[in-house]
Amino acid sequence: MKLVHDPIHGGIELDEFALRLLDTPEFQRLRRITQLGLAFLVYPSARHTRFEHSLGTFHLAKWICGHNPEIEEGAVYAALVHDLGHYPFSHTLEALYPRHEESTKWFIKHSEIGDVIKERYSLGEFLGLLKHPLVSGDIDADRMDYLVRDSYYTGVAYGLVDLERLVRALRYDGENLVIGKKGIMAAQSLLLARSMMYSTVYQHHTSKIAGAMLLKAVELEGLPYTEIRSMDEISLVARLRKGERREVRELIRGIEDRRLYKRVLYTSRDPGWAAVSELKGELEAEFGHLAIVDYPPKPKFEEKNAFVEVGGVLHRLSEVSPLVRSLVELKDTYWHWGVYAREDTVDEVGVFMRGAVGD
Amino acid sequence: MKLVHDPIHGGIELDEFALRLLDTPEFQRLRRITQLGLAFLVYPSARHTRFEHSLGTFHLAKWICGHNPEIEEGAVYAALVHDLGHYPFSHTLEALYPRHEESTKWFIKHSEIGDVIKERYSLGEFLGLLKHPLVSGDIDADRMDYLVRDSYYTGVAYGLVDLERLVRALRYDGENLVIGKKGIMAAQSLLLARSMMYSTVYQHHTSKIAGAMLLKAVELEGLPYTEIRSMDEISLVARLRKGERREVRELIRGIEDRRLYKRVLYTSRDPGWAAVSELKGELEAEFGHLAIVDYPPKPKFEEKNAFVEVGGVLHRLSEVSPLVRSLVELKDTYWHWGVYAREDTVDEVGVFMRGAVGD
Amino acid sequence: MKLVHDPIHGGIELDEFALRLLDTPEFQRLRRITQLGLAFLVYPSARHTRFEHSLGTFHLAKWICGHNPEIEEGAVYAALVHDLGHYPFSHTLEALYPRHEESTKWFIKHSEIGDVIKERYSLGEFLGLLKHPLVSGDIDADRMDYLVRDSYYTGVAYGLVDLERLVRALRYDGENLVIGKKGIMAAQSLLLARSMMYSTVYQHHTSKIAGAMLLKAVELEGLPYTEIRSMDEISLVARLRKGERREVRELIRGIEDRRLYKRVLYTSRDPGWAAVSELKGELEAEFGHLAIVDYPPKPKFEEKNAFVEVGGVLHRLSEVSPLVRSLVELKDTYWHWGVYAREDTVDEVGVFMRGAVGD
Amino acid sequence: MKLVHDPIHGGIELDEFALRLLDTPEFQRLRRITQLGLAFLVYPSARHTRFEHSLGTFHLAKWICGHNPEIEEGAVYAALVHDLGHYPFSHTLEALYPRHEESTKWFIKHSEIGDVIKERYSLGEFLGLLKHPLVSGDIDADRMDYLVRDSYYTGVAYGLVDLERLVRALRYDGENLVIGKKGIMAAQSLLLARSMMYSTVYQHHTSKIAGAMLLKAVELEGLPYTEIRSMDEISLVARLRKGERREVRELIRGIEDRRLYKRVLYTSRDPGWAAVSELKGELEAEFGHLAIVDYPPKPKFEEKNAFVEVGGVLHRLSEVSPLVRSLVELKDTYWHWGVYAREDTVDEVGVFMRGAVGD
Repeated sequence: MKLVHDPIHGGIELDEFALRLLDTPEFQRLRRITQLGLAFLVYPSARHTRFEHSLGTFHLAKWICGHNPEIEEGAVYAALVHDLGHYPFSHTLEALYPRHEESTKWFIKHSEIGDVIKERYSLGEFLGLLKHPLVSGDIDADRMDYLVRDSYYTGVAYGLVDLERLVRALRYDGENLVIGKKGIMAAQSLLLARSMMYSTVYQHHTSKIAGAMLLKAVELEGLPYTEIRSMDEISLVARLRKGERREVRELIRGIEDRRLYKRVLYTSRDPGWAAVSELKGELEAEFGHLAIVDYPPKPKFEEKNAFVEVGGVLHRLSEVSPLVRSLVELKDTYWHWGVYAREDTVDEVGVFMRGAVGD
Repeated sequence: MKLVHDPIHGGIELDEFALRLLDTPEFQRLRRITQLGLAFLVYPSARHTRFEHSLGTFHLAKWICGHNPEIEEGAVYAALVHDLGHYPFSHTLEALYPRHEESTKWFIKHSEIGDVIKERYSLGEFLGLLKHPLVSGDIDADRMDYLVRDSYYTGVAYGLVDLERLVRALRYDGENLVIGKKGIMAAQSLLLARSMMYSTVYQHHTSKIAGAMLLKAVELEGLPYTEIRSMDEISLVARLRKGERREVRELIRGIEDRRLYKRVLYTSRDPGWAAVSELKGELEAEFGHLAIVDYPPKPKFEEKNAFVEVGGVLHRLSEVSPLVRSLVELKDTYWHWGVYAREDTVDEVGVFMRGAVGD
Repeated sequence: MKLVHDPIHGGIELDEFALRLLDTPEFQRLRRITQLGLAFLVYPSARHTRFEHSLGTFHLAKWICGHNPEIEEGAVYAALVHDLGHYPFSHTLEALYPRHEESTKWFIKHSEIGDVIKERYSLGEFLGLLKHPLVSGDIDADRMDYLVRDSYYTGVAYGLVDLERLVRALRYDGENLVIGKKGIMAAQSLLLARSMMYSTVYQHHTSKIAGAMLLKAVELEGLPYTEIRSMDEISLVARLRKGERREVRELIRGIEDRRLYKRVLYTSRDPGWAAVSELKGELEAEFGHLAIVDYPPKPKFEEKNAFVEVGGVLHRLSEVSPLVRSLVELKDTYWHWGVYAREDTVDEVGVFMRGAVGD
Repeated sequence: MKLVHDPIHGGIELDEFALRLLDTPEFQRLRRITQLGLAFLVYPSARHTRFEHSLGTFHLAKWICGHNPEIEEGAVYAALVHDLGHYPFSHTLEALYPRHEESTKWFIKHSEIGDVIKERYSLGEFLGLLKHPLVSGDIDADRMDYLVRDSYYTGVAYGLVDLERLVRALRYDGENLVIGKKGIMAAQSLLLARSMMYSTVYQHHTSKIAGAMLLKAVELEGLPYTEIRSMDEISLVARLRKGERREVRELIRGIEDRRLYKRVLYTSRDPGWAAVSELKGELEAEFGHLAIVDYPPKPKFEEKNAFVEVGGVLHRLSEVSPLVRSLVELKDTYWHWGVYAREDTVDEVGVFMRGAVGD
């Protein structure tokens, strides 16, 4: 047993097997993958990494299992390694490559950490556990950790959740983590926290611009999936700094010196992918890397589907909570897509777009 | 005016001139210099950087100046840029190169941030302000920020200081920041915090071992001062990973995979530099990079000299506080030097050293 | 200047005039009026009083005025004394007596604290300031303090509000405190906090039951307004303990030993005051003090009307925020009225009510 | 199982038996005994009571027992009721009556809570458990709770202790709670916290003056032990307000209106009890209740004797920690005795005392 200091959970206990998983290059790599990607350009203190988040998720998973002994033990280790496959700067690059869950599976199948896992579990069994509601549910250990952690590190107070109430109210019914009556208020507060973090932190336009610039740089550099998935932020940035194409070097430099592109367009009105895609093609043809279209996926808000037990009957959280329903309605108003351009090209892109629209 | 979120101080207000200083590659580089170097190998959450700390120091400096309008305004900008010259992983590499203060001066004289400074201040004047007690005193804005910040990020509760009481009690007498009677308790608690952080965090043997390994790698790589001072953690690590010598690559890999050297000797008994130096020579001759001698400087604890005003008379803090005197006595018991070796060489080095001593 | 320790705001500075106001029996009486009445029967730690809350409101009022120098200085002292007229156990007894604002005015006109006020202000002027938006607005210093304070003392995390952002975003336009664009998110979080505190703390059924018992005891004791308004919790409880009627002694004993009445009916369906009033008459006739009807006023949620300035135009907060609109819709679902009875009479009252309904 | 909200420990779980103990008039009385007596006159927020502290002590005791299953179960219930016998305003009145531990025993032997206890334990057995190191040791659940709690409610940051590290490091050896090596730093920080709380809060001169006034009032009122031990703060204050002697009414009024006596003498130089006692007699003869001598017991600092296990051998904490030794030396410098007088009599008493000393 080893106790690791953590500002969120106080102390995190790691057993022998968890320590052996930690003690692999694949897991240590997570120390060099920031949790919130480029959000530190807005919230300078948000420098926490997937490593601490993974420990925190493991800790919460164990806590939940303590109240639900019927959950298979392996699920807590799945919680520990569930983020293994994240790319540098976390979600930023997922638009170009397979979702990070694919990459997590690849690591488990083909690296040292897989060898450790195989001492105890068959690969098929363990890969199945990655989808366990404990770690991939509508309300799970993963979300509970990151909301509180992201709030602590950004200094934004919205992420406060009564973790203790929530953990105590979760019951595993063999298929789902079901929230008992006493946990509804805490679950609502988790969804509220998520909703407010979404609009103020996760979708802050400045980090979205920086992310779009990074994505463009990686795209231009042409890094294949087999290469990017093993990279960390050090190797990726070092590579881009020495990119063969001037555009790549210019983009990464802009991010690092915080000389970011500006918004030409930023709206929550969605013209549909076809129209955006056409615009993207035109802008690329005209301006190359100087104008970037950013069309992020819509927020899913799966937590609304979490099961709640009231009077012996299962309901969806959104059924019993008008507050949750209103948050669901709100979510699309927070979503934005945009066109960003290098500061000296903003006006020109604006003129071009008005022309395009005017056609 | 811009307000930056900060978990320690709530919001940090940045005026136009501060923003222009921030908006230089030299200052942005501080985002890639961790505050506590390799301490994250023990306290995984300690990923904060010199960037946030610089903002926090600026904030406290402004707060103190608000109560002491006779302090020259430039001192708060000196507080902002005081850490500009830190090397990658902060203090770790100072054993090989000039102190970071030298490097700070170099940046101010020869880079873009210097041009911004010169719009308002003469270089000589500004370089002088770097030694102002506001930022280089026995109790100053720098120490007040880092103790609280390091505590917040490591999750170690010892760093709690009543900043408000302390700030209000500080009075600038033209030469020093003097602590008024109402601030003595808060000043004591600052020294206590420092003493406890020193032994549990700053001098934790695991990060000292990793630091010694890094130092050896950089030494073997032979990086000149003119090169290292402009590097950040990305360029340094990328360089060492591709080091020409196998030893360099092996050392950095050991740090990154957290496969660290082990202690052969670890003691607070000081045989003096001459004896240690001789041992160092012998070990290097015999084991090369496989055994490392780590002989850190003794802690200085300058805070004990802070001036306190009681009944109109100035005293040293250590004169009026028996607690501070006892902390001063303690400080050497926390100091340790050591010999570390690669795990497979520990026994051999142990045998060799007993032989050496036996001679 | 005196600095008072406060866990919410750190230190609260009190000037000479504020200290003179504090130094009156009327103000010191607030130390013996708990902020949340009988909520400590559910949240044992909620023992804070109107005294601390008054200091906190004064502190926030001064902070807001620091950003809005055109607000008349007297308003901060109005903020300090705004709760002077609260009855023992705060809002609990307002159903029997004039609203506490009346009582505040009476104190200002007829007691020692009034003499202090008159040294600086005319009574008419000062009484007018009690309605200043700084202290009686839709979003004001009063609400900002109590939400955060109640959250801290109950241990319920829902009350978190980014006070700094909010204070900085408030601008006084001569008539209202208007929220600037940068404060909308913080204002939303204040309303969320209020909504969640309302349902979990302020309207917790257990403290409502205890409150209804206290109200009944005071009613039976027949205390006139001229007497109750000068009482504190010590004199009221001591009086009820020695009440002439056995019912009074029994009720206060039940509260103090936490042997509370139980719910016979508890519902958010509102049959209207006429129907409830009839039921109340029938139950009183049949069961005397053993059955109590509790029909609290509906929540008002005035914060929704706060003004927000976006693009130079004033809007109501509820107009620009769908989240706020949904909170407004929710508020009635949190409201409940009920019938409570002594444990040994619950069944009998239940049978009687079904009969009454059955008629 | 019931979960009670608590700002210090999050949630406190109460089992069926604990709930039955709570559900007695004796235990509910603790809601009306403030933890820090009259300290709220200096730290207005310090309104917490022995009730919450008792729950917190129970919680910590159960946590420690979770790691030490050989501790008899009854000890956690002893922890719950250990403060049952406190007089109104906690330690203030212990100078006039038996120590509160005597009164705790009396309640257990002669009241409803004793009947509950006897269902499970023999009285002799249970009274023995009150001396168990879990609750009456040098470092125990009682101290751990109150230090952190008092810090939280006063807003003084000095009481921070790493409870988790400490609890995990405590091992029961059949006789004592022994601190393991990993807990030494946390134990030191507990002692530091106590030392700083002692000087800034527990021995603050203003609450000592108010305490001395209360003691004098109770002495003049002549309340017998058999009466005071069942009183709470409401019945005591109500009684003193209606005291037959004018002096009694005057003293309690002075406390409640915060018109406190002033210091004529306040010193840490101890002339010995005989000399002080003589002075006390003379002052009483001359000034009656207008001058009060306050000669508090010296601090004991028993924590220094806590056992620490290093390398399999037991040591006293003060043996292994120079910091603790220096705190022990300091403790007497924080102790003060004093002579206080009503504001209009201060000068006269001063003159009289100089005369007395001059003899």
